Amino acid sequence: MIKGIGHLGLFVKDIDESLNALSKLVEFEKPTIKEAPEMGVKAAVVDINGIGLEFIQDHTGDGGLAQMINEKGDMIHHFCLLTDNIEEDLENLKQRGVEMLDQAPRVGLRGKKIAMSAPSALNGISIELSEP
Amino acid sequence: MIKGIGHLGLFVKDIDESLNALSKLVEFEKPTIKEAPEMGVKAAVVDINGIGLEFIQDHTGDGGLAQMINEKGDMIHHFCLLTDNIEEDLENLKQRGVEMLDQAPRVGLRGKKIAMSAPSALNGISIELSEP
Repeated sequence: MIKGIGHLGLFVKDIDESLNALSKLVEFEKPTIKEAPEMGVKAAVVDINGIGLEFIQDHTGDGGLAQMINEKGDMIHHFCLLTDNIEEDLENLKQRGVEMLDQAPRVGLRGKKIAMSAPSALNGISIELSEP
Repeated sequence: MIKGIGHLGLFVKDIDESLNALSKLVEFEKPTIKEAPEMGVKAAVVDINGIGLEFIQDHTGDGGLAQMINEKGDMIHHFCLLTDNIEEDLENLKQRGVEMLDQAPRVGLRGKKIAMSAPSALNGISIELSEP
């Protein structure tokens, strides 16, 4: 069952610059930047009173993600729907015709089982299913 | 003081289509669509366990917002930072060099005092200050 909204996924050109900008808006504990070359990204998660801001940057600076950000600028790419049973909710979504990029759960950047939708899930906006 | 994240502002081509897509993802109470011709928009807010999804559509279908959405597609445009003292926090942000579109609080779509930032606030991503 879907339990609420868990985090926002932000595609950014430079995580350090984003954290610097964020530090003018709100106080937070500086996160470690996690390297995930197998996914082609670096990422850092800032918790703002229970909602995560997940900053995601291209790992090499010249991959597909970097090209997308160069074209479109930094963006809030997706939001996460928390589920207490990702296998079941993923099947439910697929049965309702929601197009998913991940046909089965996989371990995401935060070490949780996730499944990403296609952008069509919300008319051009992607959503992520994730364990809490 | 900033208390957390309150809602996401989604710019969409068609609120009804967005609500229809959302209904495949999560259960929610169907919101009324509020007309705000003075702001050039229609809007509807869906509450997902305490976090609002604020769907915003161009009022006439041929205003600046519609043009932006036609070019870029539906998008998560901003997230909201909740403040218990918007006048004070707005001044704090300005003193730290955050560029704001609203220099003073105004009443937003949800009937609360808000102030929108420029996209530069988070390196291309806008934020909104809002009363809870």
